[in-house]
Amino acid sequence: MEELYCGLIKIGVMGSAGGEMDAEITERCREMGRTIAREGCAILTGGCPGLPHAAVLGCKEEGGITIGVSPALSIQEHVGRYGSPTDNIDVMIFTGSGLMGREIIGVRSCDIVLIVGGRSGTLGEFAIAYDEGRMIGVLTGTDGVADHIHEILDIIKKPTGSRMFFDDDPVRLVQRCVASFKADPPVILEREARG
Amino acid sequence: MEELYCGLIKIGVMGSAGGEMDAEITERCREMGRTIAREGCAILTGGCPGLPHAAVLGCKEEGGITIGVSPALSIQEHVGRYGSPTDNIDVMIFTGSGLMGREIIGVRSCDIVLIVGGRSGTLGEFAIAYDEGRMIGVLTGTDGVADHIHEILDIIKKPTGSRMFFDDDPVRLVQRCVASFKADPPVILEREARG
Amino acid sequence: MEELYCGLIKIGVMGSAGGEMDAEITERCREMGRTIAREGCAILTGGCPGLPHAAVLGCKEEGGITIGVSPALSIQEHVGRYGSPTDNIDVMIFTGSGLMGREIIGVRSCDIVLIVGGRSGTLGEFAIAYDEGRMIGVLTGTDGVADHIHEILDIIKKPTGSRMFFDDDPVRLVQRCVASFKADPPVILEREARG
Amino acid sequence: MEELYCGLIKIGVMGSAGGEMDAEITERCREMGRTIAREGCAILTGGCPGLPHAAVLGCKEEGGITIGVSPALSIQEHVGRYGSPTDNIDVMIFTGSGLMGREIIGVRSCDIVLIVGGRSGTLGEFAIAYDEGRMIGVLTGTDGVADHIHEILDIIKKPTGSRMFFDDDPVRLVQRCVASFKADPPVILEREARG
Repeated sequence: MEELYCGLIKIGVMGSAGGEMDAEITERCREMGRTIAREGCAILTGGCPGLPHAAVLGCKEEGGITIGVSPALSIQEHVGRYGSPTDNIDVMIFTGSGLMGREIIGVRSCDIVLIVGGRSGTLGEFAIAYDEGRMIGVLTGTDGVADHIHEILDIIKKPTGSRMFFDDDPVRLVQRCVASFKADPPVILEREARG
Repeated sequence: MEELYCGLIKIGVMGSAGGEMDAEITERCREMGRTIAREGCAILTGGCPGLPHAAVLGCKEEGGITIGVSPALSIQEHVGRYGSPTDNIDVMIFTGSGLMGREIIGVRSCDIVLIVGGRSGTLGEFAIAYDEGRMIGVLTGTDGVADHIHEILDIIKKPTGSRMFFDDDPVRLVQRCVASFKADPPVILEREARG
Repeated sequence: MEELYCGLIKIGVMGSAGGEMDAEITERCREMGRTIAREGCAILTGGCPGLPHAAVLGCKEEGGITIGVSPALSIQEHVGRYGSPTDNIDVMIFTGSGLMGREIIGVRSCDIVLIVGGRSGTLGEFAIAYDEGRMIGVLTGTDGVADHIHEILDIIKKPTGSRMFFDDDPVRLVQRCVASFKADPPVILEREARG
Repeated sequence: MEELYCGLIKIGVMGSAGGEMDAEITERCREMGRTIAREGCAILTGGCPGLPHAAVLGCKEEGGITIGVSPALSIQEHVGRYGSPTDNIDVMIFTGSGLMGREIIGVRSCDIVLIVGGRSGTLGEFAIAYDEGRMIGVLTGTDGVADHIHEILDIIKKPTGSRMFFDDDPVRLVQRCVASFKADPPVILEREARG
């Protein structure tokens, strides 16, 4: 039998690391993190502040495992150069390839990518996940990239096999994604030249 | 005096590598390539087929220097795994990091990034270029990502200092970008955690 | 106070993934893995077979957390293209940058890098760890790179601040490294151009 | 017919970027650069100072094309953070992945890798080139890594198909490598898990 995933199911939470943070959206991210833990999955973020870190805190409240994929090459650079948090991250991966360079490692390492709010960094993560045909969940009602995925898909007009879920409820979104993933884990393989 | 650029000005042409190719758009890409050469600049693409390769052919017609940033780790993989062209590329950089992984190297290596048409791969390149505050030119009237940049910018709502030019004329677009770059080359530095 | 590390202390085990495996050396690697878990640390490997996987099995026996940094971009490629194991790895990071490309992420993510046996892949990992001034432990009496580090250091003749430990006992080696790391965690920062 | 290489043959010059520079060795590097140009090839370095830059200067004297693969993500970071030269480099590739991170892109992009002197950075480049089975030329009598390759090979004990040339004469070394490459270009493909 072919291996379909290994170890913990890793769920990425990609979204605004800066800018204003709405209290209600922040709380939904935190609930998303709690649900990830309750489902027995690990959370993965860019090791950044903002909405993803709210989800990390929620995950940790419920005893989940938390992974950060840092732009920095060391903890000192993570803190000193990027002003990024170190609390509540169990496993920090240091890429040393910068904010946009580390996105590829983060997305590829996720079984499921969740989009919350988001600006140009998140747009890049969505583009990678979608182009590689990965499973994507969108927390709607969080503004930014998350609330405009349909328009972006209309622009892209490229079917890649990416399975997508939309929900404004963080618990339901995580549960639907995890159930679909377990029932039928996507097969992700590099394809031929695309644009 | 601070160094503002070095060697040749490198102009990226990022756009659809697959899908149907409209003859008129293809010809405008080719003209874009010719203009890049006439301006004394080098062209950089993902070493892929499609619209970017049309621009490579135009650049070569006028004796320009052409650079490809390949997803493959060798010429054999470039051809055998990715079905990508090798003709008319003077300098092929082999990243071995896959289609979406090589995008970061390609974008960072460009002084100016031009967007033509484009789907999810191009969206990723736009996101990197925009987020890092790089200079971007958009060839309008080429469909896909290029014709919806304004909507995408409205979604992103994040000023990054990226200087943008829009034109449906490939000659004018290249000339405007190059003139602006020479007059005032952007300063690109890694910033703090963003989303 | 400056952050000195975060989350779990991650200990890399870098060594021969292929070639003949000596039973006594394999058992010492396994004991090394057990010790990593008993010390409350996580193990990190290239997600490969061979000596590093023996250490993963030991770590798991004692309930430790195990991390793999894969050359592949997905689990399917990890198994199908690289013939690499998926059992007993809790957190698999997918780089998609190939066998030698993924080494940089693996090494940078380790607080301590342990060298066991090893051939050209391990030599690359040693070079990265040493050049970046990271803490290195060498399990002596395991042949290959591990048993010739002193000669290699004589060739390199470049002090980088890398703190090094040598021991033929896996328990003592891990304990000495962890104690030194906790007492005085190295500060790792990118330096100026070197060779 | 399968493509065996494309565009210019790219010859990497990897060696000490810092430390004391012996005048006679520096001159031999420069002559190596001149020969690369006379053979109609391009030179590729890490965009760093030191011995590789001496070769760049020689290549440029003879009108050759020069490529740098920078650790920085922009020219400003290349100069300001890495203190690296920008003169005489025609095509600068910006990786933004740091000194050891950029090595993989540099080595993979070379048809032939030449080793001169060298310390831990060069050792990393040698390890990548050798492990991936690439063609390597060693300028003997330049101290450091270059003068101890045989011992390193004895330690590694892993045949990878890497074709190696040793010569203390820079002209002859380049000519021998280029002739062998043209007569029988190596086929470079990713292999299964190794160590």
